[in-house]
Amino acid sequence: MLLGRFLGEKVGLFIPSSTTAAMSGKQGTTGLALFLSLWSFAEGGKLLVVPQDGSHWLSMRVVVEMLGKRGHDVVVVIPEATLLMGTSDYYTVKAYRVPYTQESLDKFYHSIGENVFVDLPFPKKITRVFENISQFTTMFSSACRDFLYNKELIKYLEDSKFDAVLMDPVFPCGPIIAEYLSVPSVYFMRGLPCGLDFKATQCPNPLSYVPRIFTSNSDHMTFTQRVKNLLVNAAENLLCYLLYSQYESLASEFLQREVTILELFSKASIWLLRYNFVFEYSRPVMPNMVFIGGTNCEQKKTLSKEFESIVNASGEHGFVVFSLGSMVSEIPMKKAMQIAEAFGTIPQTVLWRYTGEAPPNLANNTKLIKWLPQNDLLAHPKARAFITHGGSHGIYEGICNGVPMVLMPLFGDQMDNAKRVESRGAGVTLNVLEMTSKDLSDALNAVINDKSYKENIMRLSALHLDRPIHPLDLAVYWVEFVMRHKGAQHLRPAAHDLNWIQYHSLDVIAFLLAVVLITSFISLKCCLFCCRKCFCKKGRVSKSSKSKAE
Amino acid sequence: MLLGRFLGEKVGLFIPSSTTAAMSGKQGTTGLALFLSLWSFAEGGKLLVVPQDGSHWLSMRVVVEMLGKRGHDVVVVIPEATLLMGTSDYYTVKAYRVPYTQESLDKFYHSIGENVFVDLPFPKKITRVFENISQFTTMFSSACRDFLYNKELIKYLEDSKFDAVLMDPVFPCGPIIAEYLSVPSVYFMRGLPCGLDFKATQCPNPLSYVPRIFTSNSDHMTFTQRVKNLLVNAAENLLCYLLYSQYESLASEFLQREVTILELFSKASIWLLRYNFVFEYSRPVMPNMVFIGGTNCEQKKTLSKEFESIVNASGEHGFVVFSLGSMVSEIPMKKAMQIAEAFGTIPQTVLWRYTGEAPPNLANNTKLIKWLPQNDLLAHPKARAFITHGGSHGIYEGICNGVPMVLMPLFGDQMDNAKRVESRGAGVTLNVLEMTSKDLSDALNAVINDKSYKENIMRLSALHLDRPIHPLDLAVYWVEFVMRHKGAQHLRPAAHDLNWIQYHSLDVIAFLLAVVLITSFISLKCCLFCCRKCFCKKGRVSKSSKSKAE
Repeated sequence: MLLGRFLGEKVGLFIPSSTTAAMSGKQGTTGLALFLSLWSFAEGGKLLVVPQDGSHWLSMRVVVEMLGKRGHDVVVVIPEATLLMGTSDYYTVKAYRVPYTQESLDKFYHSIGENVFVDLPFPKKITRVFENISQFTTMFSSACRDFLYNKELIKYLEDSKFDAVLMDPVFPCGPIIAEYLSVPSVYFMRGLPCGLDFKATQCPNPLSYVPRIFTSNSDHMTFTQRVKNLLVNAAENLLCYLLYSQYESLASEFLQREVTILELFSKASIWLLRYNFVFEYSRPVMPNMVFIGGTNCEQKKTLSKEFESIVNASGEHGFVVFSLGSMVSEIPMKKAMQIAEAFGTIPQTVLWRYTGEAPPNLANNTKLIKWLPQNDLLAHPKARAFITHGGSHGIYEGICNGVPMVLMPLFGDQMDNAKRVESRGAGVTLNVLEMTSKDLSDALNAVINDKSYKENIMRLSALHLDRPIHPLDLAVYWVEFVMRHKGAQHLRPAAHDLNWIQYHSLDVIAFLLAVVLITSFISLKCCLFCCRKCFCKKGRVSKSSKSKAE
Repeated sequence: MLLGRFLGEKVGLFIPSSTTAAMSGKQGTTGLALFLSLWSFAEGGKLLVVPQDGSHWLSMRVVVEMLGKRGHDVVVVIPEATLLMGTSDYYTVKAYRVPYTQESLDKFYHSIGENVFVDLPFPKKITRVFENISQFTTMFSSACRDFLYNKELIKYLEDSKFDAVLMDPVFPCGPIIAEYLSVPSVYFMRGLPCGLDFKATQCPNPLSYVPRIFTSNSDHMTFTQRVKNLLVNAAENLLCYLLYSQYESLASEFLQREVTILELFSKASIWLLRYNFVFEYSRPVMPNMVFIGGTNCEQKKTLSKEFESIVNASGEHGFVVFSLGSMVSEIPMKKAMQIAEAFGTIPQTVLWRYTGEAPPNLANNTKLIKWLPQNDLLAHPKARAFITHGGSHGIYEGICNGVPMVLMPLFGDQMDNAKRVESRGAGVTLNVLEMTSKDLSDALNAVINDKSYKENIMRLSALHLDRPIHPLDLAVYWVEFVMRHKGAQHLRPAAHDLNWIQYHSLDVIAFLLAVVLITSFISLKCCLFCCRKCFCKKGRVSKSSKSKAE
């Protein structure tokens, strides 16, 4: 009884930060002070974090810092060379040596940004994609190897007796280390290639209305799109092999038993998924999937004086925010000039995040800025449109703040993200390589002046913001749940214990078919036998009676 | 922007009542005062409620009253003859005439309770079940007809311009009226026969690990159990026909177009499901399913002096609570004596909810009581065991309070509910007809003295109580969400727009197979043609060269 009461009281004290923010009248902050003062994990737990670099880290960091602030002993394991990860007051960083330098890493990320502007013929494009994936996998799997074979670090992790591991499974080193340490794990992510997240959770994934990655399909597909969906689904296996085969060998070697990536991933207790069904299409889900889309977009700060004066000067026409994400801050001059030309045609002020050389045709209404407080700008009432590459973080900032979008997807899932916004009538997608100056100008005029875009994004925004608990609190809650209960075994479906044939009841169907066939066969034989007996007898009887009659 | 902000602020103010209870230091109440003072629906909405009588109403009433308290104009439509439904300060009741009397209704419910103790041979049992279902359906569909053709009531409902309909779809009159009024609907229920809830939500329902109703299977089935599961699944169609065919005709007649029950049910915006995965087995779900198991069991009150003195007098051995639910308050004397005998063998005090004649062998430790504050008694630290018929409400009271159970399922889903508790090692199931006095005594001794039962129910209790928001608040939140947004269209899967062949991609597979076959056939033909040409030429060449050589 006591344990139940103890937990009941603890849980009773879980105050969503959005709630406390509202209570304290500070809408827009997460009301952390009251949140913290009211609820804390008994004595604090021990949490290991294995993140993925780049924009992935930006949203995970918010959750990790909040967990640190809530009194947990949080250890984040990062490579020595990193793009965005670093130290913080709220967690301990343990860095491991990697077989590449900071310089080569920066060059690698820079090259990805550069490559998207190189227009190649289709076969070369595909080859380039596979080359990139191969390079990416080789680089990070070698980093993973160095992590796993860093004896000192592994000894430290073993001795630390963590309650849980929070990880981004895009870097599949986390699942290996969680398995090695026998610690329950929480995954934090947007999606995995080849639907590995759905396979690993035993979540049904119907091909007929759940669009596959890279197809740009929506949930309403034509026959041709459904054919494409099925073919892409089949082809994804090759991608999976490319991405995971090196990790699979490494895991088997390190854990000293044959293991597949799917097996490792299927051990996850909770999947924190950085989306919700305002952005994603409705589809089957599993009870251990938690939807936390929009953790990143509501920590609004007041604009600095510099930005405040720019946006105020924009007058009644307002302003447009343009950024292609953390990995692309400059673009080829020809493209930049095209874009600058388009901006010159609209009456809005444009704030363009750009570190490259200024295009000579830059109009007066366009400001090139090295860094933008993107979410705070979008939250300003004068924000009229948001030009984005379609990363899920940016899109959620657009949704949160109700700003219609012009999407210029560059790589990865951005094309699919853009499609989702476009299919809701809340944005226009452009092909950054093929678009002309007029295309961009038209797209901007459409999303700014055609009221339907604003209405649609406002509808999405209203749905997204109407929720019983803030996604950040939900993320923190579930990490702590796994820490408290040493996993979430009750949410694990029994499907994990069935093989493919059993799962689809093929053995049962085959058995019942066999029974029906055998029964029918025997019945038929019996009938035939009876008939024959009957007719023979009759024949004989009629013969004998005939002879008697004769 | 304004709408988004407006909603954001409103949602920011949604304070879970469990939270506020904790803040105000009143653990166990739902902290309604603060909850109400902080958040209310702008000007209050208009809600129509179409409930189902019996125990179903008891849990729905809590939600309906809370919605009334939160300032909504709530209208509950009930039949003139009812078992448990009535008026309240928090909602308006509109009663409609029904073609049966209060007396015949009471007799009907009483007969269900009586019949469960009549031991019949299997074929007669099945006939009796079908008779009961047929009687039940005829009675309530005639009530539904009287509701729908009550012109005055329908006129009133049309004029009322409701924002939403909250209903228990076990009484399928609600979906018909929601369709007629074109108002979005919220379903509130535990489960529907023949998996209609899963069909109507387009939720995958794998036969291999999701046990079907009345099978008593768990999620881990043997081959034989899986065969049974598939056969029961197939047989359920007959049950569905029996239950819904009358409503289907009525709906088609009333709506003046051909309509199926499945079509009507598939229009539900949100499904509030009275369970969670502490009690149910983990399985695929859909985004518009909300799990609110345990809304009923945390509104604890202090025990009255009468009960306080009984439980205090129970000493170190504590007490046992015994109730067979609202529909069975007396049982045949022979069975009652058997049970009384078993109670005489245990040192605990037994509080037995019983309105019949006292069995002559009643021991001193057993108190017969006409009405029990069941949940408040189970919440007492001296509660040692709970003997229940396995209704989902009772089971959640057992889980909330961490009291191990002896389950005596009587009808409906109770056998399956009992199986779920038993499969978690938190209770023992007995067949009430076949059990002996010793069986009951042994079961009680087991759950009271074998520590594993207590440990298991405490584990379930801890998991159940550890949640970010109280299920009652969640239910209220989602009803209001549907009222605010006129439905939850974004949670509706595109699967509803596909037919069976499209959903399973059979057309795509057939097309691709055809392409492969035709391509192979053409390739083969081409090869053969080439080969023939080649060989013929060769043949001719060799012949001519031969002849030349000659």
